[in-house]
Amino acid sequence: MHASSRVSALHNIATRLRIDSVRATTEAGSGHPTSCCSAADLVAAIFFSEMRYDPRNPQNPDNDRFVLSKGHAAPVLYAAWAEAGIVRREDLLTLRRFDSDLEGHPTPRLPWVDVATGSLGQGICAAVGIALNARRINSDYRTYVMLGDGEIAEGSVWEAAHGAVHENLDSLCGIIDVNGLGQSRASLWDHDISAYCARWQAFGWHAIAIDGHNMDAILSAFDEARSTRGRPTMIVAKTLKGKGVSFVEGKPGWHGKPFKKGEEVERALAELEQQFVPEELPAAQPRPRDVPRPPSKPPAPLGPPSYALGDKVATREAYGTAIARLGANDDRIVALDADVGNSTFSEKFEHQHPKRFFEAYIAEQLMVGAAMGLAARGAIPFPATFAAFFSRASDFIRMAAIGNNNIKMAGSHAGVSIGEDGPSQMALEDLAMMRSQPNVTVLYPCDAVSTDRLVERMAYHNGPAYMRTSRPKTPVIYGPDDTFHIGGLNVLREAGSDVATVIGGGITVFEALEAHDLLGKQGITIRVIDLYSVQPIDTATLVRCARETKGRLITVEDHYVGGGIGDAVAAAVAGHGFAVHRLAVREIPRSGAPEELLDYYGISARHIVDAVTEGRRV
Amino acid sequence: MHASSRVSALHNIATRLRIDSVRATTEAGSGHPTSCCSAADLVAAIFFSEMRYDPRNPQNPDNDRFVLSKGHAAPVLYAAWAEAGIVRREDLLTLRRFDSDLEGHPTPRLPWVDVATGSLGQGICAAVGIALNARRINSDYRTYVMLGDGEIAEGSVWEAAHGAVHENLDSLCGIIDVNGLGQSRASLWDHDISAYCARWQAFGWHAIAIDGHNMDAILSAFDEARSTRGRPTMIVAKTLKGKGVSFVEGKPGWHGKPFKKGEEVERALAELEQQFVPEELPAAQPRPRDVPRPPSKPPAPLGPPSYALGDKVATREAYGTAIARLGANDDRIVALDADVGNSTFSEKFEHQHPKRFFEAYIAEQLMVGAAMGLAARGAIPFPATFAAFFSRASDFIRMAAIGNNNIKMAGSHAGVSIGEDGPSQMALEDLAMMRSQPNVTVLYPCDAVSTDRLVERMAYHNGPAYMRTSRPKTPVIYGPDDTFHIGGLNVLREAGSDVATVIGGGITVFEALEAHDLLGKQGITIRVIDLYSVQPIDTATLVRCARETKGRLITVEDHYVGGGIGDAVAAAVAGHGFAVHRLAVREIPRSGAPEELLDYYGISARHIVDAVTEGRRV
Repeated sequence: MHASSRVSALHNIATRLRIDSVRATTEAGSGHPTSCCSAADLVAAIFFSEMRYDPRNPQNPDNDRFVLSKGHAAPVLYAAWAEAGIVRREDLLTLRRFDSDLEGHPTPRLPWVDVATGSLGQGICAAVGIALNARRINSDYRTYVMLGDGEIAEGSVWEAAHGAVHENLDSLCGIIDVNGLGQSRASLWDHDISAYCARWQAFGWHAIAIDGHNMDAILSAFDEARSTRGRPTMIVAKTLKGKGVSFVEGKPGWHGKPFKKGEEVERALAELEQQFVPEELPAAQPRPRDVPRPPSKPPAPLGPPSYALGDKVATREAYGTAIARLGANDDRIVALDADVGNSTFSEKFEHQHPKRFFEAYIAEQLMVGAAMGLAARGAIPFPATFAAFFSRASDFIRMAAIGNNNIKMAGSHAGVSIGEDGPSQMALEDLAMMRSQPNVTVLYPCDAVSTDRLVERMAYHNGPAYMRTSRPKTPVIYGPDDTFHIGGLNVLREAGSDVATVIGGGITVFEALEAHDLLGKQGITIRVIDLYSVQPIDTATLVRCARETKGRLITVEDHYVGGGIGDAVAAAVAGHGFAVHRLAVREIPRSGAPEELLDYYGISARHIVDAVTEGRRV
Repeated sequence: MHASSRVSALHNIATRLRIDSVRATTEAGSGHPTSCCSAADLVAAIFFSEMRYDPRNPQNPDNDRFVLSKGHAAPVLYAAWAEAGIVRREDLLTLRRFDSDLEGHPTPRLPWVDVATGSLGQGICAAVGIALNARRINSDYRTYVMLGDGEIAEGSVWEAAHGAVHENLDSLCGIIDVNGLGQSRASLWDHDISAYCARWQAFGWHAIAIDGHNMDAILSAFDEARSTRGRPTMIVAKTLKGKGVSFVEGKPGWHGKPFKKGEEVERALAELEQQFVPEELPAAQPRPRDVPRPPSKPPAPLGPPSYALGDKVATREAYGTAIARLGANDDRIVALDADVGNSTFSEKFEHQHPKRFFEAYIAEQLMVGAAMGLAARGAIPFPATFAAFFSRASDFIRMAAIGNNNIKMAGSHAGVSIGEDGPSQMALEDLAMMRSQPNVTVLYPCDAVSTDRLVERMAYHNGPAYMRTSRPKTPVIYGPDDTFHIGGLNVLREAGSDVATVIGGGITVFEALEAHDLLGKQGITIRVIDLYSVQPIDTATLVRCARETKGRLITVEDHYVGGGIGDAVAAAVAGHGFAVHRLAVREIPRSGAPEELLDYYGISARHIVDAVTEGRRV
């Protein structure tokens, strides 16, 4: 196709994308047509000139990838797919309906969507992960990510900025649709394109300023990005919100507002229809991609780890050993850390598999976001940091859950048992955060063997998962033949005379075992459960134990009382009429020695003994 | 004092700060002495030459303020206070002990600490808020914040960077202690001072590169910062980790490691002792600050709002009206938003009190962090965004709880009842996040009157608080004489024949009322509770109702099942043996019409009716 006719064809595609976006949002009665109109020329160029992909096979591992970080422009993305023949054009009018997968913001229900977007500033972190994955599989696919100007204020964008440069990701190309208008007012830097470029250049990116409605300029910018080596490119495109519809173009007060049915939308559509130009040749088609490659095979299961009963090993260290072992067995395993790899023991993986380790530095949103991108493209990523600092990425975890994204998080240094560093370093709400997401698997092993076996389980479970590990060394209590599964637990002590069931996790399992022994000296027996899988939870065994131990369930956890093990067990057994006595941290803790803190905050063996002997029906 | 003798005195103070930091961490057996040593010259200059403050009165509103964003260098901060006579030098050796307020990382247990630090990248956001407060009270105090180089990778730092420039905060001066070493490896940009300066300059700051161990250069940089108008200054100081102790200076592998007692620490101390220089004059003293001003008086309570029974008003809109009313009555009230003020209705406050409104743009960490800083200096800040996006600031909320910081958060667009925008915009885990912090008050009003009255309650409650509001309009059900308090609830329907107690919050209160009416037609009565205070919770009334309604408690909430109202009620009544039947969202939802979603996800009136008539003991 001649250059000029290519431009005409793309221009007409952009006009169709605008028309489809306007129609769909008006039909839905909600949505963001003006945010689609500013992006339409850029989207047309990306999908119908720049990207190499097979429209019939979204999962071809060598397809170029596109992430719509400004997820509220979903209708223009769906319109591009209609243009590519991936969805039926008439289905566009089902936008935002309960019976349609064309949701208000893109989710991976749709095979072309890698990660759910709609919470701004996340897509670019995922795009970093998608670009890292190309390196993992030795593919030359490129990754494109479109951002809005409003979302550039999000700190996570700048985490991605440094991460992409540090990794020299020249396969990554960002596009900022600078339409100058946020939701409530002009965006932070308005239409000052040089302000954007200066920031990206200072962070080490190649930056290109263009008029985002000039198709020649758009195509040249993509050419320039593709030939830039050693660093990522950011195309900063000056656009008009509502471009193409004169009565809204560049005007505030039109964010997230569809055109009203009737005269208003008809006027908009009539204007857009006028904008078609003659084409000499058929419309541009998305270019198909090369031969698909066979998918990776799942490897043989690992054998048991080589721990001996009684060995003292911190579960965080067993985690590091386990991912390193797993990584040797399966090249889909990837590890990420946020500059605490010598505390989380991710360093064990890094030492053995340096090419599959990604150091995010102290940027937890980037770490989790990149993991989301890696997972979306077939890797099995294990991001790790102090459990407390996963809260920094809480919104990313929320979005990973929405996308049922296959990330495997590991949080170390849980609870007051870390001791002297004090509350800022103690995770006391991580179980609540993870458990609140209905599809996040939550594991909490107490010893090295269970840690090892559960790392393997979480790796091959499909969906987001979280493992909580502890700082102190704990004795190995399981042998090579013990088995563990998602949704399981272990009854560690059991007798017919048990007067209560005590349910611990991690470090408190040992407090429960000690309480068992102390009570034994008084002739009292208790049942002790290691609740290594907090979500899903083994309701049947908990209910059985409650029935067999006079209905008394006592949970003990190194976590705040809200949202943790106590709440999880209570929710599980509620349908059978049982209530739960919760031993948990109930106030903001302070620095101190681990044993001192466990005791002061009411979760030591002594407090378990008191709860059991208190004798009241709790 | 002559310049040269001032320099000598400050040099000697820095040496004492190093010695004290080394001694304290060795005594504690943990901590970060090398991170203190790199910062010691800068801290000496800040506390004993640059800052104007009254050491005897930490709460003087005109004191210059200092935030140690790199909180792990706490010992050097404590040592500076000892030098200023604020703490006893011998108390420094109680560092990290359970009986000492000198915790591993600084917390506001200490009157000189405005916000808890130790989660990196937060202190600078708080410093923006502290600097904004100076404007609020018409003070010329200056705000200083010290960052580590590692934490510059945190996105929140760049949110603060744009926020401070947007507000032209020339009273704000940052100092980066670029010691070049993170925890696990060299930091991201190592000792490349120009890489740091370029980034800050591109973001609009005045940047000054110095040798952070050259006292003349340090003092000049502070002079330059103080005379810079219209924008904040970042002093980028090249330092050596472990400066002053030759065998660790600039060496990796010494992060977070105290010197061992005995030969190792003695060798370090001997080297440091050698570094004192002769002084001509007594040591520099912190300069006292001007006259203290009287504290603001709490205003008279507001009268009732002017809603009529049956009016349809969204609680989010009532929130905006309430803070605007409150702001007219009390100039400590400040509002912040993240570019959704026309959705959260913060815009009502902005329109009436533009000088006390701070637009953070789409940067929720900055918004909450700045609120923390404002609150620390006496403002009563109300940061607001979609409830879902408070998850972006989850780690800040965690730290605000640690500091019992007086912020008043308002999250709109809770739950599936927002409808078509889809799950990325729905908060379904915000109650879990907020409730997991033991000292965060969690309010969830269902109508405009209760919203208004509870906004006033939360404003004058001391400590962090959260209000959850809804998108749809709901009818006013309370009158001007109804009262509401933190820890309360309202029994809306009650009869002696009640067969169950149904507990709702926000939008589901109306589903419960509808269920009451539907069941009434079958001759069945239920008790209906509006649980407007989720934390603290009115245990006594819940237990009474359980006893009076056959032990049956049914919760219904527009929230995921984990960590929300069901768990809160269950935890409250567990000690009395009652269990709770939870109606809540149990899977990732999708786009759709609000009523359709409430019904599909099991929290509509129909499901309440089913739960009641199911008749099983739940």
